[in-house]
Amino acid sequence: MNLFNFLGKRGSAPVARERLQIVLAHERALNGSSGDLVRLLQEEILAVVAKHIKIEREMVQIKLDRGDSISTLEIDIHMPAEPAVAG
Amino acid sequence: MNLFNFLGKRGSAPVARERLQIVLAHERALNGSSGDLVRLLQEEILAVVAKHIKIEREMVQIKLDRGDSISTLEIDIHMPAEPAVAG
Repeated sequence: MNLFNFLGKRGSAPVARERLQIVLAHERALNGSSGDLVRLLQEEILAVVAKHIKIEREMVQIKLDRGDSISTLEIDIHMPAEPAVAG
Repeated sequence: MNLFNFLGKRGSAPVARERLQIVLAHERALNGSSGDLVRLLQEEILAVVAKHIKIEREMVQIKLDRGDSISTLEIDIHMPAEPAVAG
């Protein structure tokens, strides 16, 4: 998974929307915690972002991938070009 | 930048340490905010993580890369195999 592919092809056309992508990857030791750290962090990280920019739920895509030893969480937030600053 | 390269080659040897990597990529519209969203989020995201796992400053590496339209922040946290849950 290449983060910049993740951002999609950037043609020369100016981007109408802004985009924030957050990827968390938790590599657990074999005897490590089986806890779901990335899942645990998800809501709180979204809350941190929401303090700074106005985000609408439907503009947020979340993908969680649990491998044997690596769990990955991808949060993709589309924002209007001029993100309304929260609050 | 491929996140899984980022995690480094995973040989068969069990991982002694656990590792959490957080990558933020902010793709700004050309006329978008020039604000430093990823920089703004950095400390608060670290504070969120520190609520759940005990992290030591020297075990945290941070790389900030500011491109014309994409700013990327990489936070790489090494944790002991059994991450002491924050007290």
